[in-house]
Amino acid sequence: MAKPAPLSGFPEFLPAQRVVEQHVVATLAATFELHGFANVETRAVEPMDQLLRKGDTSKEVYVLKRLHDETGDAGIGLHFDLTVPFARYVLENAGKLEFPFRRYQIQKVWRGERPQEGRFREFLQADIDIVGRDVLPFHHDIEVTRVMLDALAKLSFLPGFRLQVNNRKLIQGFYLGLGASDVDEVMRLVDKLDKLAPEQVAKLLVAEAGLTDEQAQQCLALATIRTPDDSFVDRVRALGVEHPLLDEGLDELAQLLRGTAGLATDTVRIEADLSIARGLDYYTGTVFETRLDGYESLGSICSGGRYDALASDGRTTYPGVGISLGVSRVLVPLVQRGVVTGDRSVPSAVLVSVSDEETRQQADDVATALRARGIPCEVAPTAAKFGKQIRHADRRGIPYVWFSSTDESGATTHEVKDIRSGNQVPADPATWEPPVEDLRPAIIGFEARP
Amino acid sequence: MAKPAPLSGFPEFLPAQRVVEQHVVATLAATFELHGFANVETRAVEPMDQLLRKGDTSKEVYVLKRLHDETGDAGIGLHFDLTVPFARYVLENAGKLEFPFRRYQIQKVWRGERPQEGRFREFLQADIDIVGRDVLPFHHDIEVTRVMLDALAKLSFLPGFRLQVNNRKLIQGFYLGLGASDVDEVMRLVDKLDKLAPEQVAKLLVAEAGLTDEQAQQCLALATIRTPDDSFVDRVRALGVEHPLLDEGLDELAQLLRGTAGLATDTVRIEADLSIARGLDYYTGTVFETRLDGYESLGSICSGGRYDALASDGRTTYPGVGISLGVSRVLVPLVQRGVVTGDRSVPSAVLVSVSDEETRQQADDVATALRARGIPCEVAPTAAKFGKQIRHADRRGIPYVWFSSTDESGATTHEVKDIRSGNQVPADPATWEPPVEDLRPAIIGFEARP
Repeated sequence: MAKPAPLSGFPEFLPAQRVVEQHVVATLAATFELHGFANVETRAVEPMDQLLRKGDTSKEVYVLKRLHDETGDAGIGLHFDLTVPFARYVLENAGKLEFPFRRYQIQKVWRGERPQEGRFREFLQADIDIVGRDVLPFHHDIEVTRVMLDALAKLSFLPGFRLQVNNRKLIQGFYLGLGASDVDEVMRLVDKLDKLAPEQVAKLLVAEAGLTDEQAQQCLALATIRTPDDSFVDRVRALGVEHPLLDEGLDELAQLLRGTAGLATDTVRIEADLSIARGLDYYTGTVFETRLDGYESLGSICSGGRYDALASDGRTTYPGVGISLGVSRVLVPLVQRGVVTGDRSVPSAVLVSVSDEETRQQADDVATALRARGIPCEVAPTAAKFGKQIRHADRRGIPYVWFSSTDESGATTHEVKDIRSGNQVPADPATWEPPVEDLRPAIIGFEARP
Repeated sequence: MAKPAPLSGFPEFLPAQRVVEQHVVATLAATFELHGFANVETRAVEPMDQLLRKGDTSKEVYVLKRLHDETGDAGIGLHFDLTVPFARYVLENAGKLEFPFRRYQIQKVWRGERPQEGRFREFLQADIDIVGRDVLPFHHDIEVTRVMLDALAKLSFLPGFRLQVNNRKLIQGFYLGLGASDVDEVMRLVDKLDKLAPEQVAKLLVAEAGLTDEQAQQCLALATIRTPDDSFVDRVRALGVEHPLLDEGLDELAQLLRGTAGLATDTVRIEADLSIARGLDYYTGTVFETRLDGYESLGSICSGGRYDALASDGRTTYPGVGISLGVSRVLVPLVQRGVVTGDRSVPSAVLVSVSDEETRQQADDVATALRARGIPCEVAPTAAKFGKQIRHADRRGIPYVWFSSTDESGATTHEVKDIRSGNQVPADPATWEPPVEDLRPAIIGFEARP
C-alpha cells in the first residue's frame, strides 16, 4: 500500500500535538465538574427526522448506509452538533433525570460542508447546558457564562478571548418600541452589519423592513453599543425607546454583566455587544459569541444562549441555556501553525536504559518501582550504546535517562541523568522523583498567563 | 415531539452510569501513560478501499453519503476497529513518528451487524499497540501483556478476567512437525472446538485436512493443554512432535508466561491456552483472548496479538503487537443489569443552599471558595425550604449540604451537614474539606479487590 494522503476536513494530530488537545479536554472536563456538571455521551447517530427538524442544516448531514444493504440508507445520520442529540436524550430519559439538569458533553460532530479554515467535516465540540422542567430561572444564564469563562481562563496557553453577550429580548423590545412591524426581518437585516456597511444596512431596513430613515438610524445606533460593564443600559436609555420587553432584556443583560464582572482578566474579557443576534434560530434571551484575539477570521469559537424550548414532548417543555466551545476550531489552526504544541511525543518522564539484554528484567523492575509512584516511564527497546539510548530519549522529549549497573560483588548502583542539563546523580528507584513539572508533558506556546 | 425510543445497538448511559465509563477510561488512559504509551485519536472515517482491504468484514461497514449529494456515496465509511486506522496513521506519518512507537487509542467504532448481547453497532474500544520499523523484538509482546494486565487489575470493581495466550508459531510448528500438508486448514478446523465436540473435529481433520486418525488425536491433545505457567512446554514435548517453528513458539510463549507471572492475582489471571487461534487473520506469533468471569457468553472481551506486517508501504514493513479491550462489551451488560453504577448522578460533593434569592451571591461565593480548593459543588437552584434543598442533594447522591446565615450584626456563620449521617458542624468555606473519598463519585458494584 502506498503512503496514504490526509482527508481534507478531517484533521488529525501527531502525538505531541495531541498532548495539547488532551490537556484542553481534561481542563474543560475538570472545570465543568467543579461546577457540578455531569458528563453525558450520546451516540454518534440520530434518526434522520431528528436531524432534519431544523430544516436548513439538512444539506450538511452525513447519512449512513450499510454497505450490503440494498434496501436503501439506514435512516440514521451523524449528528452535526451536540444540542439536537442532547434535546433527544433529555426527552428520552426525562423520567430518570433530575431537573435542573446540568450536563457537559465533549464529542466529535460531523458536517458534510466544504472544508475551510476553522471549518471541518469532523470536529470536537465541548458543550455545557442547564435544562429545567417548565421553568429555568435567569440566574442559570449567569451560571453558564461564569463556568465557560472559568474554563477559558484556565486554558492559559491560548490567545485571549472576547466573550460577547447580548439579549434577544433587548433587541426585539427595542424594535417593537420603535414601532417596527416585522421584528424578525429587522433582526435579520441588522445581522448583516458584519458584511455590509452601515449605510447599506440602513437602506435595506427602509426598503425591506418598512422602517423610516430615523428608525433605521436608531437600529444602527443600538448595534454600535459595546461596553465591558452594565453602562450599556444608560446608552440604550439615551436613545429614548421604550417597551416592556426592552426593559426585561436590559435588566437581564445588566444582571449578566454584573454577575460575571469579577471573572474578567486581561486575556479573558466579557462585554455587552448589542450587535450580536445569532441568526434567527431558537434563542429567546441571552445570546453568546466569542472571538479569539488575532484569529477573528475563524468566526465565533464559542456560542450559545437561552432557548425557552430546548425540548418539548407536547405536555412538558424543557427550557435551557448553554454554550458550545468549538475545540477543533480553536486548536487545529493554532496547532497546525505550530503556535502551540506539547514538549514531548510520549508521556514518559524517564527512559530506563538497558545495558545488555540479560539485565532487561532489572530495568523493568526499576520502571515498575517508578510507576508505582505515578512516574510515567519506558524501558529502552534495545541494549544499544548509551549515547544512542540518550538520543532515543532526546528525540521523544523524555527529560531523564536512568542507568543501573551491577559490580562484581553483585551490588547495584543507580543513577539518573537530566539530559537537558547533563546533570547525573545517584538515585534510588524506590524514592527518586522528578520535579512535578517534569511528570507530564508541558504545553509550549503562548506565555502562561499571570 | 413524542418521547423518542432508544436505537437498538447504540447503547447510552444515564449520568450515574456514565460515571463508571469515565472511571474506566481514565484508569486505562492513566495506566497506558504510566507505561509510556502516547495517545492518538484518528478520524472516525477511512476511505472505503482501506476498510475493505481485509475483504471479509465488508458487510459490517457503514458507508457515508452526504444527504444532498446526488453523485453517490462519499467514498468513506466509519471505521470498524482501531487497527485499520492506526496502520494507516503509521504509514501516513511514518516520517514524523519515532519507532518503536507505543500508542493507545480509546475511541468509538461502528459495525452494521445485528445487535445482540455484548455486540453493538456503536461501541468503545481501548487499544494499545507497539509498532517497530522493520523489526520489533519479542520482549514487546511481554510488555503489551504486562500493560494490559496492569490496567485490568486496576479496574477493581469488575469481575475477574482470564487472559488466555497462545502462539501461532507453536501450533503451526506442531502441525508441520506432525506432517500436516495444509496447516491453515488444520487451524481453521481446530478452532471449531468451541462449537463442536472433539470427536466431530477429529472426523473433520481426517476428512477435510487429510490427517490420519493419530495425527487428528495429536491436534486435539495439543488443544487441551492449558497451564497457568510455563509447564505447558513439558506437556507439548511429551506429545513427541518436533519442528524448529514449534521450538520457537514454545520458547516465546514460555518467555511470555514467565515475564508476566508476577502480575497475576486472584481476579486477573493469565494462562497458556493452546486452543486459542484467533481465526485465520493476520496474527503471526502471540495471540490473546480474554474471558470475563461469569460472562463467558460475551466471548472474548480483550483480544490481540503479534502481526509481522501491521502496515507496509512496499519498501518498509512495520511489525506490531497489540491488544484491544472491548470497553462497551464489558461495561454495557454490567451497567444495564445494575451490577455496577456510580453513587452520584452529578460530580458535586456539596450543595450550597440558598436561604433567599437576595443571598444567592453569598452562596456563589462559598461555592467559588470550595472550587478553588478542588471541591466540586453546585448552588441550589431556588431558595426553597431547607428540607426540599436537602432532598435535592439526596436525589442526586450529593453527600454534603452547606448552610450560611447572617445575623442582625451582619456576622455570617457557616455550617455543613453530612446528609448521610445527619451530622452538622461549623465550617469555614476557605478551609473545610470533605474526606478525600467523598470528593469524586464512587463506583458501586463488586467488592473492591484486596
